[in-house]
Amino acid sequence: MTPNPFQQCIDMCYACAAACNPCASACLSEPHADAMTQCIRLDIECAEICTLAASTMAREGAFSAEVCGVCAKVCDACAAVCEKHEADHCQRCAAACRACAEACRSMYAGQSS
Amino acid sequence: MTPNPFQQCIDMCYACAAACNPCASACLSEPHADAMTQCIRLDIECAEICTLAASTMAREGAFSAEVCGVCAKVCDACAAVCEKHEADHCQRCAAACRACAEACRSMYAGQSS
Amino acid sequence: MTPNPFQQCIDMCYACAAACNPCASACLSEPHADAMTQCIRLDIECAEICTLAASTMAREGAFSAEVCGVCAKVCDACAAVCEKHEADHCQRCAAACRACAEACRSMYAGQSS
Amino acid sequence: MTPNPFQQCIDMCYACAAACNPCASACLSEPHADAMTQCIRLDIECAEICTLAASTMAREGAFSAEVCGVCAKVCDACAAVCEKHEADHCQRCAAACRACAEACRSMYAGQSS
Repeated sequence: MTPNPFQQCIDMCYACAAACNPCASACLSEPHADAMTQCIRLDIECAEICTLAASTMAREGAFSAEVCGVCAKVCDACAAVCEKHEADHCQRCAAACRACAEACRSMYAGQSS
Repeated sequence: MTPNPFQQCIDMCYACAAACNPCASACLSEPHADAMTQCIRLDIECAEICTLAASTMAREGAFSAEVCGVCAKVCDACAAVCEKHEADHCQRCAAACRACAEACRSMYAGQSS
Repeated sequence: MTPNPFQQCIDMCYACAAACNPCASACLSEPHADAMTQCIRLDIECAEICTLAASTMAREGAFSAEVCGVCAKVCDACAAVCEKHEADHCQRCAAACRACAEACRSMYAGQSS
Repeated sequence: MTPNPFQQCIDMCYACAAACNPCASACLSEPHADAMTQCIRLDIECAEICTLAASTMAREGAFSAEVCGVCAKVCDACAAVCEKHEADHCQRCAAACRACAEACRSMYAGQSS
């Protein structure tokens, strides 16, 4: 079985979803959830598209590059919001989003070359 | 509650997923599933991204237009393959994909204007 | 093409996801999102499992009844929380959840008989 | 940030989805895809519920145990079918499914005790 050429990106996408979902949950448990609504919204968007991106790459889906293109944008947006919060869950989430955005960009750059 | 401006597109996306998933299943039950593999692959990709597009629009997600842009491409590809098969499930699926692609394009054209 | 025996339940599941996702989003935009955190959490859980239930039934998946069994429980829990809020989005969501829970219970009762 | 008590199970669920999705794709590329239809069907069901299970556990969702209960059953069924095929992708998938089923059972056993 040939290794999936996108394996690293798949791993990053799952790792990002695995950081965004608990960040959403933790934000909802913060005493001031009001202040975290942008974070919660983007965490949910980001977790969903990262999961889709991982699934489609794992199937070597024909539109993997296009999905990764959008995924990179959502990851960047989520990172930008989470970075502003000091909470550990936000900092971890932001780091996972930045790494995933980078992997997604490398993936579709590789595809289009 | 203000109606969601994307309600028609959301409905089309769910209708498309509701046509792609049974098409995949029916193709897998055909006596010559071998001949239907492209159809099955695209049905699955299409059902997943339509579901994501519907969910993100329903939440008025910030990247709805980008997701719909990719969704329209996947729908078109799925329709092009399904159209070639005479089976009722493929014809229904192709029609749902064409309608969804059109709705997605209108949605993101509206967004960017 | 034989009609899917679960078509009504599939429709209810998509309708429920289509009510839960905007309810989550609207709750996050309320001036007191703090008061709505249980609603937001359950809206997200409910939208995700309703989508899965619809997809698996549409493919006549072998575990459709089991998935619908859990889906009914999540729908009931989401309805119970949303019902307490007067906001139109919560009332609509609760109604969609109750209808979906009922359809899911009928579906798996029919399966096991 | 307290570590998620279900982290190991979350990791197993993502690893299982990451094995089921490529198995479905590889089965569809086999010269005799006809012989692999049960495998393809269960791979797709399994990948979807594993992803849902991981997401809901990551959010410490109230119905995580119930979702894991169904997930374990789908994983076992997928493993039983994949085990019969010698292809490397099927053997890897079966192993991931067995490990995930075990983790899901431990998780909800822990919950109910």
